[in-house]
Amino acid sequence: MAAENKATNITWHEGHVTREERAGLLKQKGCTIWFTGLSGSGKSTLAFTLEHALVQRGRLAYVLDGDNIRHGLNKNLGFSAADREENIRRIGEVAKLFADCGVLTMTSFISPYRKDRDLVRALHAEGKLPFIEVHVSTPIETCEQRDPKGLYKKARAGQIKGFTGIDDPYEPPLEPEVTCRSDGSQTPEESAQAVLDALEARGLLPG
Amino acid sequence: MAAENKATNITWHEGHVTREERAGLLKQKGCTIWFTGLSGSGKSTLAFTLEHALVQRGRLAYVLDGDNIRHGLNKNLGFSAADREENIRRIGEVAKLFADCGVLTMTSFISPYRKDRDLVRALHAEGKLPFIEVHVSTPIETCEQRDPKGLYKKARAGQIKGFTGIDDPYEPPLEPEVTCRSDGSQTPEESAQAVLDALEARGLLPG
Repeated sequence: MAAENKATNITWHEGHVTREERAGLLKQKGCTIWFTGLSGSGKSTLAFTLEHALVQRGRLAYVLDGDNIRHGLNKNLGFSAADREENIRRIGEVAKLFADCGVLTMTSFISPYRKDRDLVRALHAEGKLPFIEVHVSTPIETCEQRDPKGLYKKARAGQIKGFTGIDDPYEPPLEPEVTCRSDGSQTPEESAQAVLDALEARGLLPG
Repeated sequence: MAAENKATNITWHEGHVTREERAGLLKQKGCTIWFTGLSGSGKSTLAFTLEHALVQRGRLAYVLDGDNIRHGLNKNLGFSAADREENIRRIGEVAKLFADCGVLTMTSFISPYRKDRDLVRALHAEGKLPFIEVHVSTPIETCEQRDPKGLYKKARAGQIKGFTGIDDPYEPPLEPEVTCRSDGSQTPEESAQAVLDALEARGLLPG
């Protein structure tokens, strides 16, 4: 159904706008770039560095991280096993919606369990949306040395229980699309460039 | 911190891209347009009609509705009072993220309780994001006559309990930004135009 509205020169349509129409408008293809790694590994620095580079190139990018998720959508979740799983599930679903909308969506969460990440990957595959897993592979010694939030110190002192890398496992991705090193061998800019290259190689940044 | 990368001509920056930078890129200001009304009132028809008109004008718009929320993010919620409240809360949080990203975000849910909608409104006010409540004010007689999903029939037969308008209340907005009538006195196109006018009046569609 379509009707002309002469006053505004709009052709009115019912029914959904397709993903392709939005991709054409934005001149990019929505996807999820999933950063995973230990606390202090440099995930957020990398995500925000990449976000800047993308926006500078005229691309719409957005980062989902602890700041905008933990205090909002997931504020009713704690750190039990079930809550951690639900935390990642919800982030995965929201990232999928953003990707469907055409946004270059980045998520910056430790996301230590392979099973949870693989569920998010499957969710994207089901929705025919690109999922780019980026392992921010910084040795725990480096992360603990940095300890930007003082969390390792607290975990070592037993003040935090179930801390990833100390008394809870981190399961590295087996086949991540990109592996970044933030141990001094690669600058955040070089890491961001590696992810950018991966996006271009997949045709997500046409034009 | 910024560093020149000559190969790609990118200036690398750390730190967040601001809402204003993304608004400049998209040439629009993100907001949430919250459609509320009875089942069969015409919320989704109106939302998708408006989405088409916006995308046709080169604006990035996206609809959150039962199809992409109930089977995804909120698939672990039922229809108890607590679950209905959590359903609206999560949708409100996700809409807020989309609006923050710069998207003209529409939500199409019955959202029958004033308290829940007002919480979402407060959430947006807190984030300094425009919230435009659109009451799709169709008389229940019209909705029941249409009954596109056969739900009123089931509710009348007692096969669905707690159905809005039958045995559960619908609390109309007291001061909605826009009121639309889908009872024959206003076409979906006229209703969509009224919402479009409200967006323009608020300076959300510059240029």
